[in-house]
Amino acid sequence: MNKNFDSRPIGVFDSGVGGLTVLRAMLHAFPSEHFIYLGDTARVPYGTKSASTIERYSLQVTQHLLNRGVKALVAACNTASALGLDAIRNHCLIPAMGVIEPGCRAALRATTHGRIGIIGTRATVRSDAYRQTLISMDPSVTTVSYPCPLFVPLVEEGWFHHPATRLIVEETLAPLHQENLDTLILGCTHFPLLKSVIAEILGARIRLIDSSEAIVDEINQQLTTRIVPASPDQKGTLTCLVTDATERFLEVAGRIIHDLPIEHVEMIDL
Amino acid sequence: MNKNFDSRPIGVFDSGVGGLTVLRAMLHAFPSEHFIYLGDTARVPYGTKSASTIERYSLQVTQHLLNRGVKALVAACNTASALGLDAIRNHCLIPAMGVIEPGCRAALRATTHGRIGIIGTRATVRSDAYRQTLISMDPSVTTVSYPCPLFVPLVEEGWFHHPATRLIVEETLAPLHQENLDTLILGCTHFPLLKSVIAEILGARIRLIDSSEAIVDEINQQLTTRIVPASPDQKGTLTCLVTDATERFLEVAGRIIHDLPIEHVEMIDL
Repeated sequence: MNKNFDSRPIGVFDSGVGGLTVLRAMLHAFPSEHFIYLGDTARVPYGTKSASTIERYSLQVTQHLLNRGVKALVAACNTASALGLDAIRNHCLIPAMGVIEPGCRAALRATTHGRIGIIGTRATVRSDAYRQTLISMDPSVTTVSYPCPLFVPLVEEGWFHHPATRLIVEETLAPLHQENLDTLILGCTHFPLLKSVIAEILGARIRLIDSSEAIVDEINQQLTTRIVPASPDQKGTLTCLVTDATERFLEVAGRIIHDLPIEHVEMIDL
Repeated sequence: MNKNFDSRPIGVFDSGVGGLTVLRAMLHAFPSEHFIYLGDTARVPYGTKSASTIERYSLQVTQHLLNRGVKALVAACNTASALGLDAIRNHCLIPAMGVIEPGCRAALRATTHGRIGIIGTRATVRSDAYRQTLISMDPSVTTVSYPCPLFVPLVEEGWFHHPATRLIVEETLAPLHQENLDTLILGCTHFPLLKSVIAEILGARIRLIDSSEAIVDEINQQLTTRIVPASPDQKGTLTCLVTDATERFLEVAGRIIHDLPIEHVEMIDL
């Protein structure tokens, strides 16, 4: 066994299916790594729950993934990243990443005039985590946040390109036009699936930041520093865990992401 | 104390705010009764969860309301009525009602040609509870069921009369036009808030059955048989309990129902 490689899996979790956009990007970028995806579908959505509840759920999920021997942990859920990541980091010794810091770093690299918008669930926007993280990284930027509560159900039902979706995206994002933004963080893992509609409505001038791309960059950096990679000879595998209703998970997963190699989903109790 | 009256409260529960449409109708119809409303907001929605999980949650809610001394219990939630009511009735001695049986009785009174449609969440439709109940009451009726998964988020966000809502209702209900229905059960407590759009799209020929009206009829009958009413001199009160995020509950409650006398919401742990 080569001690320069670590064949243990990377744990990825989300309140439901949204994190699959992040998982997909990671599977593509790191084909030698094993992954365990945990969707806390019994308690989805986190986005409407209180901070203390989200923290408690995040810790339970973390403990389960630690028991399965993961070498690193990704909270592929904006709400859990915003409200649970500090507790997760206090609780475990392995590297734990959320989507917020990588998203903010990507936004700061992309911005031309320092005017950055953030869209997300109500809970993510209310948590103020993106704004606080952006300001802590660069106090000179100006930020504007808008909640987009209907985007998640539209994505989960597969209405990506419907005229009703266009109307809802148009009306929800209308206040952004006067903000003169140059960059917009898609602060919810579901939103990249509406990227083409959002881009069309906002125009090419605004650069969209997709968490799944940002987290891949982050892991790429960590794989040369804090995380020991798997052997390039290893063929990565994917284990899917949910806390409820495996068939619903497969149904939505199939509707929103067609090219994921999910064959089997295991139900667990947290 | 007059032994012909029973001042104990009536317990009403839902997975979230949807049951408030039922509560509103009951407050209006029974001004002398005390009510306790319990919204299981920490675990909303029930509609995407498994049957065993919904049964377990329903029993926990029931036990909490029994501990508070309710004289009757109303599951103002189609999913809990479909999947939890048998367990609730096995668990407690007081009268327990769901929205499904009253809704079915109302539909059977309304139907002219025995062609009844049912719309609800995916879980309610998948449970087949409305169809089974209708058939058990009148084997000659023909039923058709359609899930309308986007109606709940549209209602919770207050998009009652928006063109996007109209488009979504139109497209979702399009398959109903060829079914030649004379009656449609609004098999989700949120749906009465879209009644005017649904009625406009389906036309006046189809009679819409609203759970909140049906349950008031049911309680009216039980108040002369199985439930002892409160003294007419009593002024009814309302106690609101939620399992998470009181401010979110008040926000959505305010958005969907403007005339409810909710002043205080208590957070409980189940």
